[in-house]
Amino acid sequence: MEVTRKNFKESLDTIYSAIEEADFLAIDGEFSGISDGPSVSTLTNGLDTPEERYHKLRKHSMDFLLFQFGLCTFKYDHTEVKYIMKSFNFYVFPKPFNKNSPDVKFVCQSSSIDFLASQGFDFNKVFCIGIPYLNQEEERLVREQYDERRSQSNGVGTPSFISPNSSKGPVIVPEEHKVFIEKVIEKVEDLLHTEKNSVHLEPCTAFQRKLIYQTLNWKYPKGVHVETVETKQKERSILVSKVDEEERKKREKEKQEKEQEELNDSVGFSRVVHAISKSGKLVVGHNMLLDVMHTINQFYCPLPEDLNEFKEVTTCVFPRLLDTKLMASTHPFKELINNTSLAELEKRLKETPFISPKVESAEGFPSYNTASEQLHEAGYDAYITGLCFISMANFLGTFLSPPKQHISARSKLIEPFFNKLFLMRVIDIPYLNLSGPDLQPKRDHVLYVTFPKEWKTSDLYQLFSAYGNIQVSWIDDTSAFVSLSQADQVQIAVNTSRYAESYRIQTYAEYVETRMEEKRAKRKWSEDSWKEVERKRLKVQYAASLSTSPSYGFPRKGTPGKRSMSPIQEEQVSDEMEEGEIQGSDESGASNWTSTSPAHTKSTRKHKKLKTEAVTSSELFEVPQVW
Amino acid sequence: MEVTRKNFKESLDTIYSAIEEADFLAIDGEFSGISDGPSVSTLTNGLDTPEERYHKLRKHSMDFLLFQFGLCTFKYDHTEVKYIMKSFNFYVFPKPFNKNSPDVKFVCQSSSIDFLASQGFDFNKVFCIGIPYLNQEEERLVREQYDERRSQSNGVGTPSFISPNSSKGPVIVPEEHKVFIEKVIEKVEDLLHTEKNSVHLEPCTAFQRKLIYQTLNWKYPKGVHVETVETKQKERSILVSKVDEEERKKREKEKQEKEQEELNDSVGFSRVVHAISKSGKLVVGHNMLLDVMHTINQFYCPLPEDLNEFKEVTTCVFPRLLDTKLMASTHPFKELINNTSLAELEKRLKETPFISPKVESAEGFPSYNTASEQLHEAGYDAYITGLCFISMANFLGTFLSPPKQHISARSKLIEPFFNKLFLMRVIDIPYLNLSGPDLQPKRDHVLYVTFPKEWKTSDLYQLFSAYGNIQVSWIDDTSAFVSLSQADQVQIAVNTSRYAESYRIQTYAEYVETRMEEKRAKRKWSEDSWKEVERKRLKVQYAASLSTSPSYGFPRKGTPGKRSMSPIQEEQVSDEMEEGEIQGSDESGASNWTSTSPAHTKSTRKHKKLKTEAVTSSELFEVPQVW
Repeated sequence: MEVTRKNFKESLDTIYSAIEEADFLAIDGEFSGISDGPSVSTLTNGLDTPEERYHKLRKHSMDFLLFQFGLCTFKYDHTEVKYIMKSFNFYVFPKPFNKNSPDVKFVCQSSSIDFLASQGFDFNKVFCIGIPYLNQEEERLVREQYDERRSQSNGVGTPSFISPNSSKGPVIVPEEHKVFIEKVIEKVEDLLHTEKNSVHLEPCTAFQRKLIYQTLNWKYPKGVHVETVETKQKERSILVSKVDEEERKKREKEKQEKEQEELNDSVGFSRVVHAISKSGKLVVGHNMLLDVMHTINQFYCPLPEDLNEFKEVTTCVFPRLLDTKLMASTHPFKELINNTSLAELEKRLKETPFISPKVESAEGFPSYNTASEQLHEAGYDAYITGLCFISMANFLGTFLSPPKQHISARSKLIEPFFNKLFLMRVIDIPYLNLSGPDLQPKRDHVLYVTFPKEWKTSDLYQLFSAYGNIQVSWIDDTSAFVSLSQADQVQIAVNTSRYAESYRIQTYAEYVETRMEEKRAKRKWSEDSWKEVERKRLKVQYAASLSTSPSYGFPRKGTPGKRSMSPIQEEQVSDEMEEGEIQGSDESGASNWTSTSPAHTKSTRKHKKLKTEAVTSSELFEVPQVW
Repeated sequence: MEVTRKNFKESLDTIYSAIEEADFLAIDGEFSGISDGPSVSTLTNGLDTPEERYHKLRKHSMDFLLFQFGLCTFKYDHTEVKYIMKSFNFYVFPKPFNKNSPDVKFVCQSSSIDFLASQGFDFNKVFCIGIPYLNQEEERLVREQYDERRSQSNGVGTPSFISPNSSKGPVIVPEEHKVFIEKVIEKVEDLLHTEKNSVHLEPCTAFQRKLIYQTLNWKYPKGVHVETVETKQKERSILVSKVDEEERKKREKEKQEKEQEELNDSVGFSRVVHAISKSGKLVVGHNMLLDVMHTINQFYCPLPEDLNEFKEVTTCVFPRLLDTKLMASTHPFKELINNTSLAELEKRLKETPFISPKVESAEGFPSYNTASEQLHEAGYDAYITGLCFISMANFLGTFLSPPKQHISARSKLIEPFFNKLFLMRVIDIPYLNLSGPDLQPKRDHVLYVTFPKEWKTSDLYQLFSAYGNIQVSWIDDTSAFVSLSQADQVQIAVNTSRYAESYRIQTYAEYVETRMEEKRAKRKWSEDSWKEVERKRLKVQYAASLSTSPSYGFPRKGTPGKRSMSPIQEEQVSDEMEEGEIQGSDESGASNWTSTSPAHTKSTRKHKKLKTEAVTSSELFEVPQVW
């Protein structure tokens, strides 16, 4: 079911009850882009720590807009032995609902937009009839403004102004407005002593209107009704009417109800996310880290800087999350599933030993046909994510004795997969652990190498040709991690590099230490109070500059437009996509224009892919304990 | 005529000849937003210098996308005594055309998008079938890459590699790829000595493909054709075919022609702008500074930092520009025209003493009807801008003796208006002068005031209540210009403020001096070489910190969400729009969420508006010399 601003309000009850009755929910989001900084392949370095990955995504992905949100609710019918699903495809847009509402600026990445366009995405539905939303802070502010307006209007017996000054009594009218306000009072006195019902004051400035409101509220707490009206020429002026108490209250009430409704409308789509959150139901997604980050960032609060705080917030908003990509990459599935991209996974789970689940659309809901794919429509993606979850959960039932055909979303069997979000393309840490500390793999075979920005992957292969098979994970134009096949080669490599001029090698441990020091220096800065910092200023700055400035002589950042020359030129080709999520941006993100050598990241990824399978061993991964 | 990616190529000749035959051209652009920083009313301070305004627009407006470009060509038919117009409405989008093309990120401002949506703007036409483009540097890079690919393919007699190393002879094959490459050579030898016509090599990495290309080019400069093919699974592999010289050359030629065409396609809409530029024709726009900035930034080169450089670039790209808003605000028009917004101007120019020009659509071109407005479609806006220009130009002819009914775009009468772009909402400098230094009005009645961010316009009115009528131009949350009615009050105000703790007053001259010093310090930084800076480091930093750190104790930047409390609360209302250009963003820009007190800027604007009429006197403005 497609939900836009046009039918949102009338659909809310349907949505609420679908969530309420469901056994579990599946979600998916479509964004206006993925990375506004480095290319996606640089954004997702194979040796990122969970902290690093979180910081990068927070920095480079959150300015994009989540503009389509898919929700699919699944309810198990025990008598019919099938799931009943209700799917919703929401178009979401931060339409400013009035002059006080936030004017959101969001970024679009042309490759992502182009990709969605090629999938038949309807941008007019987003931009013209997208459902508005407010995050919690924005909602609080708007409600405050509303209360403020209410207390300023003469609906309340005595005016209770927010401003401490004006609440005390007579309004302070600046000298130059005194004559103006006196004239207004004359006119109102006139009104009160004649037959007329109302008087139209002449157009004036916002400030003067404020003064009028305050003065009349104070002078005539009862008996007159003051409201702002707009002329055809969009000029605003004030209409003062004589009303009896009853009429005045009625008018005020109507106005307040209208405002209250507008306010609820402006909270808009956030109400759906609140309902999902409040339900406490299991929420399933595929490769859902970015979906979760965007959902919280857009509808709850700006993401915290600290990963642990993010984990806390996320667990509050979504107490139970399950990532089907992580599930499919874990024993006992990973042995059976080669390609965990959503479309491929869905296909694979239709074949033995898996069993396609029986799922039907609820009455009145359109059904999706998995044969004619509608991939990258958020509602459809949420739907097949749900299908994948059901198939995999049921497969776990076959390990029980006696085997069980249906495994519910509340089964203990799936608990080991809870709150572990797949970490895309990280070699040795399969997931971000929302309910505890993250895995810390040994990285004693890894080198941190810095070099001139002209270097390409081939130069690194040549440099380390003596060490057998290596694996390169690019960090940026001038640095990369190089994983050697044996940890005992690390010291040799470091020693050999000591007299090199063009490049520099550190062990992974040294790299981490340097980063920690930089962080400590930084934190010191922000934690100390201004005055203290001022006192320590020269000293601290000097120390910081020592630890951050590189000790070799080539620039750190590539100049866009400057072409690279290296001993061996690589052909520039694109690799097969690894993941279905906005593939377009993935592809051209990797061939980012400003990157001086798009090709290197490509072959890196290919290598990484091979390696991933070898390294993500079950020793590193918390294997579910049930079997 | 609507032009998208679908009909762009077939329309190019029509567009070129329309430009070629025209007497003058009118243009207009629609953008995805106006300001990604301060609200529009803060962006356009009434006392901006042209440099300041340019810097602000460059900083806060250039990340938006110009996504609709209107071009209307006007050709005068002397026999029929009428203009023939051809109007084009281009949808423009930076679609990445292949993996090497730039992946542009652009910002959208929800108020602007919402405004365009309310005007029936078709976003699908932009994002799905918008015409691509490249700026000149991008085009150069793509052409270079193309040449590189050509020289690497075996179309050329001898391979001439870009890479100095590989051009010398045998390819350096890294140790681990040697076996692989040897196998490839074996296969090719096999091919050459059997009946087969071609051999399909197994899929391999991009790097390996590069090695294959280089090796085979070097080993078999003639006799084999090497090409990369893609399998259904999107895997790339290499196909080696036996070909005779003629066949090989034919294939290469075809491939090159196809690539050349793709390349021209990717330059796309920029070709239209190049044609406008090359024609040297008069280009008319309404309030066109942003249009010109976006056009140059998007289709030529990133805007230079320096205003004078911008003037140079602009004069190169558009040798003759005319801004109808500036023209309408100037003698003899300003005495006759109250509202210079495009829609109002067009209406006014239909009435006496002006005469509606006779303008007809060329055959085959749809005609616009000014009665049923299609404002904010770029093609329509360009069209009525042209109408306004014709009416005003012809009006100048009535001053001649004998009066002339038709004034051509080449008439000396309109030259005084050339290359002067309207400066929106600047009190005392009506235009940016592209062909010379800008006007420098006296500002000795102006104070620069800094204060706590809780202050509102009313607080400033109160502070200066002793000085009679004042005018406030907000700079940011904690500073504003205050113009006194008499210059001799300035020193009194400065003296009075000396012992104030919460606020601080400088004369405008002092303010300018401080800014200049800051600039000099900054420039020193960037001009000095790294080593020199390193040596001077501590000294310079200390000096800079003295000149930039405020001497009072409240924070400079408002915290979003923190509410302001001031003695007098102002009602928050929106003002009448001053300008037709994306009014939506104008409106809600002014009520920007992060601004702690949206109201203050409003009343400022109102005041400014009144003042503008008083101050933009003909003494300041270069009045055309003709009358």
